[in-house]
Amino acid sequence: MLILMKSNASEQQLEAVAARVRDLGLTPHPLKSSSRTVVGVTGEYNGLDPAVFSALAGVSKVVRLSVPFKLAAREFHQDDTVVDVAGVKIGAGQKLCVMAGPCSFESEEQVLEIARAVKAAGASIMRGGLFKPRSSPFSFQGLQQGGAKIMDLARQQTGLSFVTEALDEASLELVEEHADMIQIGARNMQNFTLLKKAGQSKKPVLLKRGMSATLEEWLTAADYILSGGNSQVVLCERGIRSFATHTRNTLDLSAVPAVKELSHLPIIVDPSHGTGIRNYVPPMALAAVAAGADGIMVEVHNNPEQAKSDGGQSLFIEQFRQMMEKIPAVAKAVGRAV
Amino acid sequence: MLILMKSNASEQQLEAVAARVRDLGLTPHPLKSSSRTVVGVTGEYNGLDPAVFSALAGVSKVVRLSVPFKLAAREFHQDDTVVDVAGVKIGAGQKLCVMAGPCSFESEEQVLEIARAVKAAGASIMRGGLFKPRSSPFSFQGLQQGGAKIMDLARQQTGLSFVTEALDEASLELVEEHADMIQIGARNMQNFTLLKKAGQSKKPVLLKRGMSATLEEWLTAADYILSGGNSQVVLCERGIRSFATHTRNTLDLSAVPAVKELSHLPIIVDPSHGTGIRNYVPPMALAAVAAGADGIMVEVHNNPEQAKSDGGQSLFIEQFRQMMEKIPAVAKAVGRAV
Amino acid sequence: MLILMKSNASEQQLEAVAARVRDLGLTPHPLKSSSRTVVGVTGEYNGLDPAVFSALAGVSKVVRLSVPFKLAAREFHQDDTVVDVAGVKIGAGQKLCVMAGPCSFESEEQVLEIARAVKAAGASIMRGGLFKPRSSPFSFQGLQQGGAKIMDLARQQTGLSFVTEALDEASLELVEEHADMIQIGARNMQNFTLLKKAGQSKKPVLLKRGMSATLEEWLTAADYILSGGNSQVVLCERGIRSFATHTRNTLDLSAVPAVKELSHLPIIVDPSHGTGIRNYVPPMALAAVAAGADGIMVEVHNNPEQAKSDGGQSLFIEQFRQMMEKIPAVAKAVGRAV
Amino acid sequence: MLILMKSNASEQQLEAVAARVRDLGLTPHPLKSSSRTVVGVTGEYNGLDPAVFSALAGVSKVVRLSVPFKLAAREFHQDDTVVDVAGVKIGAGQKLCVMAGPCSFESEEQVLEIARAVKAAGASIMRGGLFKPRSSPFSFQGLQQGGAKIMDLARQQTGLSFVTEALDEASLELVEEHADMIQIGARNMQNFTLLKKAGQSKKPVLLKRGMSATLEEWLTAADYILSGGNSQVVLCERGIRSFATHTRNTLDLSAVPAVKELSHLPIIVDPSHGTGIRNYVPPMALAAVAAGADGIMVEVHNNPEQAKSDGGQSLFIEQFRQMMEKIPAVAKAVGRAV
Repeated sequence: MLILMKSNASEQQLEAVAARVRDLGLTPHPLKSSSRTVVGVTGEYNGLDPAVFSALAGVSKVVRLSVPFKLAAREFHQDDTVVDVAGVKIGAGQKLCVMAGPCSFESEEQVLEIARAVKAAGASIMRGGLFKPRSSPFSFQGLQQGGAKIMDLARQQTGLSFVTEALDEASLELVEEHADMIQIGARNMQNFTLLKKAGQSKKPVLLKRGMSATLEEWLTAADYILSGGNSQVVLCERGIRSFATHTRNTLDLSAVPAVKELSHLPIIVDPSHGTGIRNYVPPMALAAVAAGADGIMVEVHNNPEQAKSDGGQSLFIEQFRQMMEKIPAVAKAVGRAV
Repeated sequence: MLILMKSNASEQQLEAVAARVRDLGLTPHPLKSSSRTVVGVTGEYNGLDPAVFSALAGVSKVVRLSVPFKLAAREFHQDDTVVDVAGVKIGAGQKLCVMAGPCSFESEEQVLEIARAVKAAGASIMRGGLFKPRSSPFSFQGLQQGGAKIMDLARQQTGLSFVTEALDEASLELVEEHADMIQIGARNMQNFTLLKKAGQSKKPVLLKRGMSATLEEWLTAADYILSGGNSQVVLCERGIRSFATHTRNTLDLSAVPAVKELSHLPIIVDPSHGTGIRNYVPPMALAAVAAGADGIMVEVHNNPEQAKSDGGQSLFIEQFRQMMEKIPAVAKAVGRAV
Repeated sequence: MLILMKSNASEQQLEAVAARVRDLGLTPHPLKSSSRTVVGVTGEYNGLDPAVFSALAGVSKVVRLSVPFKLAAREFHQDDTVVDVAGVKIGAGQKLCVMAGPCSFESEEQVLEIARAVKAAGASIMRGGLFKPRSSPFSFQGLQQGGAKIMDLARQQTGLSFVTEALDEASLELVEEHADMIQIGARNMQNFTLLKKAGQSKKPVLLKRGMSATLEEWLTAADYILSGGNSQVVLCERGIRSFATHTRNTLDLSAVPAVKELSHLPIIVDPSHGTGIRNYVPPMALAAVAAGADGIMVEVHNNPEQAKSDGGQSLFIEQFRQMMEKIPAVAKAVGRAV
Repeated sequence: MLILMKSNASEQQLEAVAARVRDLGLTPHPLKSSSRTVVGVTGEYNGLDPAVFSALAGVSKVVRLSVPFKLAAREFHQDDTVVDVAGVKIGAGQKLCVMAGPCSFESEEQVLEIARAVKAAGASIMRGGLFKPRSSPFSFQGLQQGGAKIMDLARQQTGLSFVTEALDEASLELVEEHADMIQIGARNMQNFTLLKKAGQSKKPVLLKRGMSATLEEWLTAADYILSGGNSQVVLCERGIRSFATHTRNTLDLSAVPAVKELSHLPIIVDPSHGTGIRNYVPPMALAAVAAGADGIMVEVHNNPEQAKSDGGQSLFIEQFRQMMEKIPAVAKAVGRAV
């Protein structure tokens, strides 16, 4: 940690900072440059909030030297983690993982038809919401318990694995029982109670990036899950909020190489929420693969025009098939099988 | 609702859109301009997701004519709501409400000393966390149950009302029992399970704006609480995430006049989280009052340099006193008592 | 154009709006829904600022039905434009165009060495600044006139075409004389005087997206150039400003499919400025190709560690070669030659 | 300057960094902590681009210890600058400065009527565009030369001072000749050629903040003007681009206390562009004064409903008068006269 003093900080203020550093069992190393003094801090300060120093008089800024997350950090865990979703492996060296399915489960017919189609086109995991975190309390909230049974049936018939979102402690239990992977949505990325609960699960977790989360915040949220003992976490970039309005969110594909540098966890990309526009999904899915993502998650519907939610960003089944035909060549070009 | 067709949409696509509108029991009104056709939709479509139309072929965009929230909307409820926090009234025509206190409760001495000081300086509600939603699982997580007893004691000794944050269902019960107002934090603004639970409470709720929430999303979150039967909601602007780095968040004071136009709910401003820098808090608090806010919420600590969290943005008690001396004249200038 | 009235707008206000519409030679079409009235406007209103209606009492919002740009719009010009840079063709159906070179020209040796290397690796256009728009007046400002001569020499020796940035009217003349393509930088995207001047040039123009420009603003800036009679404009996505800090800018690859839908102009991507970090450039360049870009522009330096500017985001020559080996397969996978 | 090495940087990489520091005539001070090494750099490195170090192998990040601007920095110039606009003084200790007028000059009658009205209500400087930097080439571009004569006439009749925008070198000459203060607009904040030209002028300059400019970039742009010898620069906050859509821009009032800490230059606020909505202008103008701004700039029109541009954000004259009645009490509450 480095403590940058203000250019007009007094000797007494510098002394007080050094004293506070020593109080906390650490060692201060003042370095005076022409314009200001910096105090390097060495010792064991795991878990110490840098803000304790920014509160002191004469301090301009505190700069961390280490990342705020630990368990998710490549720094402390060099080898890539491989996550196993009921036999489907995600991560370094493994085949590109394709997750596909509707926004929400709406009926048995809908789920089974989509399941067969995405399986045939090459997907290995099916997505689909049982509970919907709708912005408005007056909108469709999902099939819930009824959807869980349809999920079991679809697994039996197709052999696909299933990922679905848990919204709270109650739904997490249902999801844990029926799904193969628990999804934590963007809105819940910092719902620490839910993260801790997911950390105690035996099922792998898909952690979506919050709408305005930095990579540090996202990986620190992953630490909440990992610190509970669950090492099976996959990250999912799904677009961030920016000023741009041509897409629903701004898909930040640079998160792929950046997460690979900072962390050992696998990362996949969701271009459906990342763009919100059906026709932009295939090019952005291909781009995600080219950028080195470990997988993609896309919304596909047998009848998007009648979908209860997210119809505008759901691919037609035929569109999904065509996209899946192009993916192997892109994956191969960047050294990955499908 | 207006459905804008693409400029190259075909007659059949237009027909299909009109048919879908009629299917939903609504009436389509096509209007053809030189460059494209717009379909106005009339009828009762409460709760209908506009996305059902954006999924149709040939549709460019769907424009709502009404706001997506209802119960929070001034459109449907003209008179300003006044919220009563154990006798302290917040809202139109009422005195400016000042909430002050530490980020977290740390000890009995700390709480009592700050309580007496902020009461003497003119605050009517004390803030302070029992549970802390810390980004890292390794940081201080709050006094919890122990803090609740200190709160009761401080109320007895000073007559202040208390607001504190609930993080989940379990903590909401404790907060509901001991505090006078339940705070829902920025990170939980779209934790719909928690919002629904708060909607069933008899205690008033302080709903902070999410870090990247539009006003529509914020007011729709308020609808979740209101629709549970709890009409006592106060909104709190606390800064949004932008590219700017000179402050921790970007305090969006224009939310004050905008919320007053869109909604009947009271709105207060938190310049402590809004700036993250102690010396910017007093000018921004005064600005919030001048902009017409119904109150302010500021962090004050008896010893910010030793605070367990947010020390850098907490006012010294003396600083708070000096700020409180300037507030009445600004409030009066914009027609409000303190 | 649609004029949305406020829900509490009076009949008189509606009348006044209709009258203003008629005054401007247009026809109003009021449509009353349960919650409010919308006035559709038909007729010829090219160039009319929608703000003229938002100024009227009772008006809530004005919604355009057509895009604000014309000459750049696919709506009015279906076929893809192909831009010719001294024989190198950019745009639909043409080979992927690779532009590469240093941030700034620093010396004859530097330029010639890089020129030979990028040519050998497959680039067809060389980039490199003669003038540098440096944030600080105290930084290196470019070789200027001296660099132009080096450019001529490098063209002679390698047969590459050259693109370089013009900062103002004076530098535009020099650039026009020596380069094959005039670059307008992100900071000048709305320097309308410079855009008009570029519109009068016979040389093709590379128009970078402004740091916080929407696609509408960007394409309207292109209209400034096109309206001067210069039809040879290539757009370049180079990252936008967001809250994210893991990259210098946030590369918005979704601009590629979106621009292709809205406009007939070619679009290329600059992952060097888009990320600002050397190691993220190759994956993002591959992603740009997979997303359907007509080309890429990357910074390459023979000695990035000694570069006068942007060294941290410049590829080593060897790194560039390795990236160029992967590009053909990705391009081919999405149906394009290199 | 501090150079943070990566956690896995080798001894050789550290050596190479130290060698490069010494090559540049500076002194390296390595500090090893448990997780990584930091190299403090001391010596005279004015104008050195920190990026020269971020290009080196093993370097994670470079942290500046001093601000990138010099002449605008309070660090090097403690006393507040007072700017004199033809007798109207702006800055510390001086009366609050009110600039008011239409977006554009449209006719002699319009200008004279507004001039008399804003003068009577207490403004001391009139604003109004001769040249309009319109996003579209097809929109109204200003009265230009003709407007300059109207300006001279209005000055004669009212004694007001005038500020108007220069778009390029040609318009700067006309503005310099007729106006009392040269405005550099948000879109030109990094038009370095224009900034240098303004730096050679004898007239004071109003420098608006760019739409996505950090305070460092803004103050560095001011350095371009100051380094030309013109010390008379006033900064103007006018809203930044964020995801929020309830206002045209997000007015960042925290820039007021932050600029006052970082710089000695006066700062004013433009709530008209900052919000884009007429009814939000008075509360935000009052908030700007409460936050400590040295002045405000607002758009006022004698007939906003017929204005050629920005009508929706222009105050009616009567609205301006009412706002001006509240301002003195707010100004006085924060220790400033009007």
